Amino acid sequence: MAQAAEALQHALQRLHIPFDAAQFQWQGIVPVEYKAHAGEARGLGWRGVTRYSLGRPPYIEAQFALRYFEIAPDGFSSLEKHTHVHLVVVVRGRGRALVGARVFELQPLDIVYVPPRTPHRWVNPYNEPFGFLCTVDAARDKPQPLSDEEWETLKANPETAPYVF
Amino acid sequence: MAQAAEALQHALQRLHIPFDAAQFQWQGIVPVEYKAHAGEARGLGWRGVTRYSLGRPPYIEAQFALRYFEIAPDGFSSLEKHTHVHLVVVVRGRGRALVGARVFELQPLDIVYVPPRTPHRWVNPYNEPFGFLCTVDAARDKPQPLSDEEWETLKANPETAPYVF
Repeated sequence: MAQAAEALQHALQRLHIPFDAAQFQWQGIVPVEYKAHAGEARGLGWRGVTRYSLGRPPYIEAQFALRYFEIAPDGFSSLEKHTHVHLVVVVRGRGRALVGARVFELQPLDIVYVPPRTPHRWVNPYNEPFGFLCTVDAARDKPQPLSDEEWETLKANPETAPYVF
Repeated sequence: MAQAAEALQHALQRLHIPFDAAQFQWQGIVPVEYKAHAGEARGLGWRGVTRYSLGRPPYIEAQFALRYFEIAPDGFSSLEKHTHVHLVVVVRGRGRALVGARVFELQPLDIVYVPPRTPHRWVNPYNEPFGFLCTVDAARDKPQPLSDEEWETLKANPETAPYVF
C-alpha cells in the first residue's frame, strides 16, 4: 500500500485525527500526488497544488471522499471539467475559483458548488496559502480538458479570460 | 417546498455561497429542524442543536450530503447509532465527541470518523458555540437508540459514562 494510503487508514482507525494549527496539518496525514500525469492537453497545467486525502473508501464505509487541497501563492489547479461534482468549503486563506462563466473571490468557510461538466480552476493570487476541503463521490470520472468552444467562450469573457491558459 | 430546502436550492444555483464570519452564517442558508421527532427512546434526547444543510441531492448531483451542526453551550446531540458513517470536520469552537468506547476533545479542523453502527454523541461543555461540518451518504438509514448491552457497557466505562443519559 502506498505510504499516504496506509497513513490515512491508520489515522481513520483511531477515529479522531487531531489538527495541528501551527503547522496547518492533520496528525498522520501525508500529501498524495496531485496529477503527476495530468497530460499535455491545453489547460491541464498546474502549479503549487498539494492534495491530502482525509477519508475515502475502503478506509471509511461510504460512497464519498473528502480531500484537502492547498494552493501555494501564485499557484493554480488544472482548468478541467468532469461529470462528478465538487462541493468545496474554504478553510485557509483566500483565493479565486473559475466556475463556468464566473470567477468568485473566496474566503474562509465560503462554499463553492461545481456542477457536472462545468469548467473550473482554483487560483491563489495572494501571498498566503489557500486551502479548501472538497467532497466528491467516491465513484467518479476522470477530469477532461475543455472543448474548443468552451475554451473560446471563456477566453472571450473578460471575467474568466485571465484564468484560461 | 419547505423554506430551508428552497433557500438551499437557490444558494447552490448561484454556485458560490459566501460565509459571513461576523454572524457565523452562510448567505441564504437557513436552519432545518434537528429531530423534532427523535422519539422518547433512551438517549435520544438533545439540547441546543441547530442543523443546516449545505448541499444534498437533488440540489447537487451527488451521492452525499454536507451538513453543518452547531451545538450551543451546554448542548448535546442524541446518543445514537446507525449503519451510515459520519466524517466530521470541526469549524467552530471546541467540543467533545463520544464515539464507541472513546471520548475525544475537539478543536477547529479536527476530524472525527464515526464508523457504521457505532454509538456517538456530540457535546458542548464550553461557553462558546461548537460547530462542525458532517458529510454523509445521501441514501442512509435512520438513527437508532442503543441496545441494552451497548448502554450498560458505556455506562460502565468511566470515560464514556458521563455522556450516557
